[in-house]
Amino acid sequence: MITIASVDHRLHAPKSELAFGEFVPPYENPRRVDSILSRIAETKLGPVLPPERFGPELIRRVHSAPLLTFLETAWNQWSAHFGKDAPPALPLSWPVGGMRHIEPEGIAGKFAFFALDASTAITPTSWAAVRSAVDVALTAQKRVADGERTAFALCRPPGHHATADNYGGYCFINNAAVAAEAFRQGGARRVAILDVDYHHGNGTQAIFYRRPDVMFVSLHGAPETTYPYFAGYADEAGEGPGEGFNANYPLRHGTKWDAYGAALGHAIQRIENYGPDALVISLGLDTFEKDPISYLKLRSEDYIRIGEAIARLRRPTLFVMEGGYAIEELGLNTVNLLQGFEAKAG
Amino acid sequence: MITIASVDHRLHAPKSELAFGEFVPPYENPRRVDSILSRIAETKLGPVLPPERFGPELIRRVHSAPLLTFLETAWNQWSAHFGKDAPPALPLSWPVGGMRHIEPEGIAGKFAFFALDASTAITPTSWAAVRSAVDVALTAQKRVADGERTAFALCRPPGHHATADNYGGYCFINNAAVAAEAFRQGGARRVAILDVDYHHGNGTQAIFYRRPDVMFVSLHGAPETTYPYFAGYADEAGEGPGEGFNANYPLRHGTKWDAYGAALGHAIQRIENYGPDALVISLGLDTFEKDPISYLKLRSEDYIRIGEAIARLRRPTLFVMEGGYAIEELGLNTVNLLQGFEAKAG
Repeated sequence: MITIASVDHRLHAPKSELAFGEFVPPYENPRRVDSILSRIAETKLGPVLPPERFGPELIRRVHSAPLLTFLETAWNQWSAHFGKDAPPALPLSWPVGGMRHIEPEGIAGKFAFFALDASTAITPTSWAAVRSAVDVALTAQKRVADGERTAFALCRPPGHHATADNYGGYCFINNAAVAAEAFRQGGARRVAILDVDYHHGNGTQAIFYRRPDVMFVSLHGAPETTYPYFAGYADEAGEGPGEGFNANYPLRHGTKWDAYGAALGHAIQRIENYGPDALVISLGLDTFEKDPISYLKLRSEDYIRIGEAIARLRRPTLFVMEGGYAIEELGLNTVNLLQGFEAKAG
Repeated sequence: MITIASVDHRLHAPKSELAFGEFVPPYENPRRVDSILSRIAETKLGPVLPPERFGPELIRRVHSAPLLTFLETAWNQWSAHFGKDAPPALPLSWPVGGMRHIEPEGIAGKFAFFALDASTAITPTSWAAVRSAVDVALTAQKRVADGERTAFALCRPPGHHATADNYGGYCFINNAAVAAEAFRQGGARRVAILDVDYHHGNGTQAIFYRRPDVMFVSLHGAPETTYPYFAGYADEAGEGPGEGFNANYPLRHGTKWDAYGAALGHAIQRIENYGPDALVISLGLDTFEKDPISYLKLRSEDYIRIGEAIARLRRPTLFVMEGGYAIEELGLNTVNLLQGFEAKAG
């Protein structure tokens, strides 16, 4: 299997991350990619290639112009206001129910307008890393669109929490959504996105919620107890023309392979029935039992089975990296899944 | 003038405050009250009395039961989840447009549901301080309702950002709104709230936005550049039966007495025309030129004139303390305003 990866992900590396009431060493950090690349080399999974450069056209089909302008200029505006030595930029407030939806002029207000959490810092070089992650996704997508059975986009930062208008949850641009849009623009009639990250892909869901041409199917921690809390319920089925094309499988804390595998079987069947021309996997490994910020209980060998189940769909399949924070085992678990896929994909 | 104050405000004293990307010593801290009490003593403004205890009935008329349950139990739930030595409790994420409005079961999700910013920490003893501030407001309100010309409720923490359903901006319970409701329950036909804090009183506005019996009038930094950013525009005039009973005077950075005094004149005239039976002043002194987190340019002597202008309304008047963070001059500016009022109130 070909992996696309860029060294530029290292340009996004905040020194700390706001967790619950304090700054901690970032869970989402460059060592995540090191762990995966190291395992890819060790297992001879296949070549690792750099991305091509893509223009902003496909990104603009997924995200609003104000969000993109903000992300590209946020650090410069922040440092112009707070000084060149200012700490990485974080939001501090946000609109609540009943407030106006008007983009403020000042930079602090803009952060309040565009962010969806306070754990996602923007540094002077974050935007370059964000753009490189989209290039990684689109380069891998192009491989699959051009006829490869599969490819792995080793994106960092991840993307599935980013909506058309908001960034957060370590995510800025929704790499998987941009890739799905690329399949559509390339002629795929129907695209399915299967999101197996521990956290609900609220951004991807929202982007395609009213569309029948991109189905979103997600297995994730139940929103009652799991970030991002306010999306991911089982009754979110899509709206308008998108009704019936969104499927959520919320899972309780402590879920092991038995219940996970059953839910995955249902999810795969939904996608099979849909009959997509291409499949995008939002690949999170934070369902792992040792993940430091998650509460599912999958073991390393379970990822082989997830890969096998995905392969049975027999569709052109693009894997797009999302979360996974048990860094020591992240490479093992990621490659287990990809190898499980390859073994059955033939 | 009688001042009501409680020593229990000291029970809310987080060691740090999340500002823009880093923790800093809290701007909203107990020394604010010390500065004011010291100036009250120095100027012999009048007696300082402790509050009586009030039940929760009036608070429940202003805030939702879920918010009150959350505020009262938040620390216990937080420490049960994160440990007894956990840092003061802060939200980390929040719902954005399109997300569900369902209260999560887990405590981190509850913070995301109820908070409106990430600068307002909850400590083990915060709730006791919050309750004492309401008692301060209601004790002073009772004095005025019982016939005193005026009284000063030296509330801390402040209240005007707290909505029916959300806390934040250093505020938990909306002391001024609860006091206004007390006037109404006590027989006042119409109550006006004049908010002169630098930050828009979004909470008070939202609580009374559809009601004609409590008019809300605010002078504040323009929302385009000023927290809380998404409320406080001049076109917010009330809704439904409340239409015409909300008036905002947003002011640009750098506004001095000339423009401020003119806006205040308009605001006072609006209240005069309304003809309230009682007046509540949300008293913020962060319009001061040396305030560390604000951008208006009033001088200490200007507060005398604000007090004089309020006195000209000749209504039973309750002053409820809100913000003001230039601690050294906070007592001077606060008492200047109260003395300006007294001089003209006769």
